[in-house]
Amino acid sequence: MTVVKVFVNYKESILNPEAEAIKQALGRLGYDDIIDLKVGKTFELTFADQLSHDKIEHEVNEICDRMLANFNMENYRYEISDSEAIQ
Amino acid sequence: MTVVKVFVNYKESILNPEAEAIKQALGRLGYDDIIDLKVGKTFELTFADQLSHDKIEHEVNEICDRMLANFNMENYRYEISDSEAIQ
Repeated sequence: MTVVKVFVNYKESILNPEAEAIKQALGRLGYDDIIDLKVGKTFELTFADQLSHDKIEHEVNEICDRMLANFNMENYRYEISDSEAIQ
Repeated sequence: MTVVKVFVNYKESILNPEAEAIKQALGRLGYDDIIDLKVGKTFELTFADQLSHDKIEHEVNEICDRMLANFNMENYRYEISDSEAIQ
């Protein structure tokens, strides 16, 4: 099996209200040495065996562009590995 | 600066409806060679300079237990690095 980890994050220029809210809440809890906080999403896709790496890369890019990442606000990167699902 | 990447994922025993919905949607779009899909969150915390690794590890565990991960449904792991924020 081929496992692809996709990391989706907001673009630098985009303000992430969720991250801001978490950072302020952490400040109120006394964790005031955190100078920046970013929130992102991960998708771990497990592909069936018979696909080539090129085919998988092509599909992953398509899947990210069409569904997993909002092109206007987010960017993505991915890592391909042939081991079992990474814990 | 010290950057800590926290990865929060659902425990294996927990059904993730969001992941199921995405997997089915991908199937309808013709991507039927995906045999498993997991969805998780990443938090990238940037700590101020003067903290020791032990202090940071202690704080990260506390922050995850208290806020970033739901102990009942999720588990977390983290990576500490001293470089600039990883893209």
